[in-house]
Amino acid sequence: MNSPATTLSQTLLLAQALIRRESVTPDDAGCQAMLGERLGALGFTVERMRFGEVENIWARRGTAGPVLAFAGHTDVVPTGPLEDWDLPPFEATLEDGYLFGRGAADMKGSIAAYVTACERFIEQHPDHTGSLAFLITSDEEGPAADGTVKVIEALEGRGEKIDWCLIGEPSSTHSLGDVVKNGRRGSLHGYLTVKGIQGHVAYPHLAENPVHMAAPALGELAETVWDSGNEFFPATTFQITSVQAGTGSNVIPGQLKVTFNFRYCTEVTADDLKQHVRMILDRHGLRYELDWHLSGEPFLTERGPLVEAAVSAIAEVTGTETELSTSGGTSDGRFIAPTGAQVLELGPLNATIHKLNECVRVEDLDNLSLIYQRILERLLTA
Amino acid sequence: MNSPATTLSQTLLLAQALIRRESVTPDDAGCQAMLGERLGALGFTVERMRFGEVENIWARRGTAGPVLAFAGHTDVVPTGPLEDWDLPPFEATLEDGYLFGRGAADMKGSIAAYVTACERFIEQHPDHTGSLAFLITSDEEGPAADGTVKVIEALEGRGEKIDWCLIGEPSSTHSLGDVVKNGRRGSLHGYLTVKGIQGHVAYPHLAENPVHMAAPALGELAETVWDSGNEFFPATTFQITSVQAGTGSNVIPGQLKVTFNFRYCTEVTADDLKQHVRMILDRHGLRYELDWHLSGEPFLTERGPLVEAAVSAIAEVTGTETELSTSGGTSDGRFIAPTGAQVLELGPLNATIHKLNECVRVEDLDNLSLIYQRILERLLTA
Repeated sequence: MNSPATTLSQTLLLAQALIRRESVTPDDAGCQAMLGERLGALGFTVERMRFGEVENIWARRGTAGPVLAFAGHTDVVPTGPLEDWDLPPFEATLEDGYLFGRGAADMKGSIAAYVTACERFIEQHPDHTGSLAFLITSDEEGPAADGTVKVIEALEGRGEKIDWCLIGEPSSTHSLGDVVKNGRRGSLHGYLTVKGIQGHVAYPHLAENPVHMAAPALGELAETVWDSGNEFFPATTFQITSVQAGTGSNVIPGQLKVTFNFRYCTEVTADDLKQHVRMILDRHGLRYELDWHLSGEPFLTERGPLVEAAVSAIAEVTGTETELSTSGGTSDGRFIAPTGAQVLELGPLNATIHKLNECVRVEDLDNLSLIYQRILERLLTA
Repeated sequence: MNSPATTLSQTLLLAQALIRRESVTPDDAGCQAMLGERLGALGFTVERMRFGEVENIWARRGTAGPVLAFAGHTDVVPTGPLEDWDLPPFEATLEDGYLFGRGAADMKGSIAAYVTACERFIEQHPDHTGSLAFLITSDEEGPAADGTVKVIEALEGRGEKIDWCLIGEPSSTHSLGDVVKNGRRGSLHGYLTVKGIQGHVAYPHLAENPVHMAAPALGELAETVWDSGNEFFPATTFQITSVQAGTGSNVIPGQLKVTFNFRYCTEVTADDLKQHVRMILDRHGLRYELDWHLSGEPFLTERGPLVEAAVSAIAEVTGTETELSTSGGTSDGRFIAPTGAQVLELGPLNATIHKLNECVRVEDLDNLSLIYQRILERLLTA
């Protein structure tokens, strides 16, 4: 193993080089070319997979299974007004032990930590078991349509499987490694139009007010207990995200538009939820149209080799007892888990992501790289 | 009495002269000056009352009571696209026994019919009892802020009272005089903001969804029976006219805006309704702001001299048995009735008002003038 000082400087230098490329979604700004070169030198076979305007990389070292892949994204969210940043977002400035810049925590820091972890690991174990892989996209913060989902389709198409997937999303909340995400809830959007008959408020018997008709049904949807969750997931939640009806002050609206979202656990399926919603709407005698968008199915990685490797590695490097969590929004894990891969998200603190003055502790980057290295050792050495 | 042929031509000529002035609200376009001159010649004292940009006339013949006033408006609603009219809206064309033009039915025809009725009546009864009056505004179709309401304030301010008020609004539905309006429901607008706490749909425990909280209350408001009406009025109705909440698809809205309207009868007061609504909202534990706009209090003119005069006059001229009705929207009667005046709306058919190709049967104009004349004779001769 290299000395801590060297470790730090390698990870930090790569993170800085990545941050200095202004890769706002979907512009990769050369990040992937740089990574590809570095991985090529390590013996990875690097495939650039461009879909639409989105650059992606699939890089693999080894041909045997099991495959341990790192999934990450080089794209970053916009900075907002530059003058609101205390330090410029694309200069990767160091101050008080922190590295500042857009992407420092989400997730160029993680990528750099994983690359240097691989470098040290391969130096010690050039003939590791299984395969190392990288799945890097530049579309995670955008529509996520031509990124991970398309790479996974391509891999599936040729029968190439990921067994274990580490995602570098910033999972930590108070200290490095205190939380890893071993699953995510599903997200299902509903688009409801309740039909009425428009009319003048002075003649309500000639009209049919869709707001009046829908109110009890919406109340029931809001009150419904969809399930009670399970060991890994909180209960499924339903939230109305918008309602819109009406224009003129003396007009009974002709229709009511409602959008809503389920965050759902593995106790129900999207089809269960759809059927339940329709049952409630039908019971209230509504005339309606209802469209759906399944943003992501829920997934869960139960305790097993990947989770155990991560939990032990974190304990060794930081002394922290890790909490397994499935809370929060969605991630690209939703595209990878359905292939049967075990998926775990492990990265730095998420306090500053998508905000002004995004930053990461340099010490955390160094320790994260050590944690990743321990995981590699546990999973890919005999 | 003049011969029918003369009657017809005088009323028609005046109606045409008025229609040819393009008096879209609030522009009077010289209509009132013309009327003022004509009434002055009949012995009326004509006062022009300008409030803001709105021209109004108060004209009175006689100083004794009781005062029988005709209330009307010279303004008309816009035409919409001129090319959609079969005949030009400001040329007052005659075709197949109909007079076409914007304002023909609402309500330049009625004004012309009443002026010529007065001319014939005064010719026969120059020393009639009581007083004849005209309250003409050019703001009925607009905000109605500087029209009738201000004239009434001015009259009240100097102790001048209207006892009976005939309004020329087109009350007839299938044949001339089949319906007169002897009252109107009140109209009360509510502007409700239900307060929640905005948040991400993935973290509903940190937010408070105002749509979820309000839905049962809105359902209850829609279901509530406010009263059961009475002999003259249908039951009070409540209608939600708009709802609006939410922006982003993954955001729990921070507030819900609801507007609603009551059309209410004389069995309740606006204060009763306000209190009842607050009680329901409070019982559901909502945090909210609630503003009100009282557009018009309900009024009712029970059977008495004015109603009897109108009913008899219609029967005499057309043979029609008149229905007393309080249905429909509001009219300037809401400003006059609170002074204690008996108010009755009697005018031509309303089938084409506010529409393309507005028109009135020339024969109806003639008969309307005769009806008005009979009413004058019944109320202002000894």
